[in-house]
Amino acid sequence: MRYCVIGVLLSSVCPRDDLRSRPDSSSAERHVGHRVEVTTPDPALSARTIELALDNVAQGGKPFACIVVSAEDGDVLVEATNQVAQSGDKSAHAEIVAIRELASRGREDLSGCIAYVTAYPCPMCLGALYYAEPDLVVYAASREEEGEHYEDGGRYMRLLTFYDEYAKPVEERSLPAVRGEVDDPTVPFRTWTAEHGDE
Amino acid sequence: MRYCVIGVLLSSVCPRDDLRSRPDSSSAERHVGHRVEVTTPDPALSARTIELALDNVAQGGKPFACIVVSAEDGDVLVEATNQVAQSGDKSAHAEIVAIRELASRGREDLSGCIAYVTAYPCPMCLGALYYAEPDLVVYAASREEEGEHYEDGGRYMRLLTFYDEYAKPVEERSLPAVRGEVDDPTVPFRTWTAEHGDE
Repeated sequence: MRYCVIGVLLSSVCPRDDLRSRPDSSSAERHVGHRVEVTTPDPALSARTIELALDNVAQGGKPFACIVVSAEDGDVLVEATNQVAQSGDKSAHAEIVAIRELASRGREDLSGCIAYVTAYPCPMCLGALYYAEPDLVVYAASREEEGEHYEDGGRYMRLLTFYDEYAKPVEERSLPAVRGEVDDPTVPFRTWTAEHGDE
Repeated sequence: MRYCVIGVLLSSVCPRDDLRSRPDSSSAERHVGHRVEVTTPDPALSARTIELALDNVAQGGKPFACIVVSAEDGDVLVEATNQVAQSGDKSAHAEIVAIRELASRGREDLSGCIAYVTAYPCPMCLGALYYAEPDLVVYAASREEEGEHYEDGGRYMRLLTFYDEYAKPVEERSLPAVRGEVDDPTVPFRTWTAEHGDE
């Protein structure tokens, strides 16, 4: 999987002690024991998302990063950056690259994890996070702050209007969509539910 | 890239003549010339998304498929199915698998393409399609029809309430999200825009 190359463990690029030596009143509790829940954001990790995003820009990439850490002990599980410019894959946003990388290592969801991101997720990545189910998302910039300084829209939306598209009825969204004619559109769902519905 | 294995050209599994011999009043115009725009949905392709979804269920997968065709000449560029169950990657919905597969072949967006899907896209895939920019999305089942027969929610949403989450303010969404403290959250965006803003 081509994205593995950017999904590096923080320990390989930034020693844990170095990270933990930064001023950070909220992360100290992580040292107490393995069962301590950490829900207070760690400013050092938000700062790291900014650093990774800047590094990605320097490498020709887009200005976004995502770090997934264990909520239990603060271990960094993956660092990822937006790979759209590098790969041409429009779905390769940092959050999705992180989810893919963790899946490739056998972790199928982010329960028990915190996702640190450069900016509040776009609608695509928000959807991915609803499926992946981290305990918490910590974002450095709001959508509005991002939109003031960055534009990555296209013929169907601008970043500042992207969420508005979701509030519209299907037929009013700028992405054209029509019903196709089929005899029985729900047969795949009924078939799946008959086999898996009680799982 | 692991998803390439399921991104097979239709021509390899279903001869074009076979496809075109099905009753299909709208697709005939595709034979007229290379410059004819095809925006009328082809029922044979919607039926094929149902067939692929059923095949995927038979293989242990989820009941979704996506076929991307050229709007100009009707050529099938990729067939993809949901690979979440097979790969553990929560982002591996059919639409995103198709986008990744086409990107791996050098096609970075879906302009000039029509995306045929089993059901109207979930919020994640809708976002991916806003970025990939197909000319048209053709869906067999509506979200409501799908929701009547299938459930794939989790601790943050049910399928029928998923879009409702997007209409809420950030702080009211069920996926917990908080601001992280950083000195300058927009520096990655300003840096990117300084380099690329006039592209």
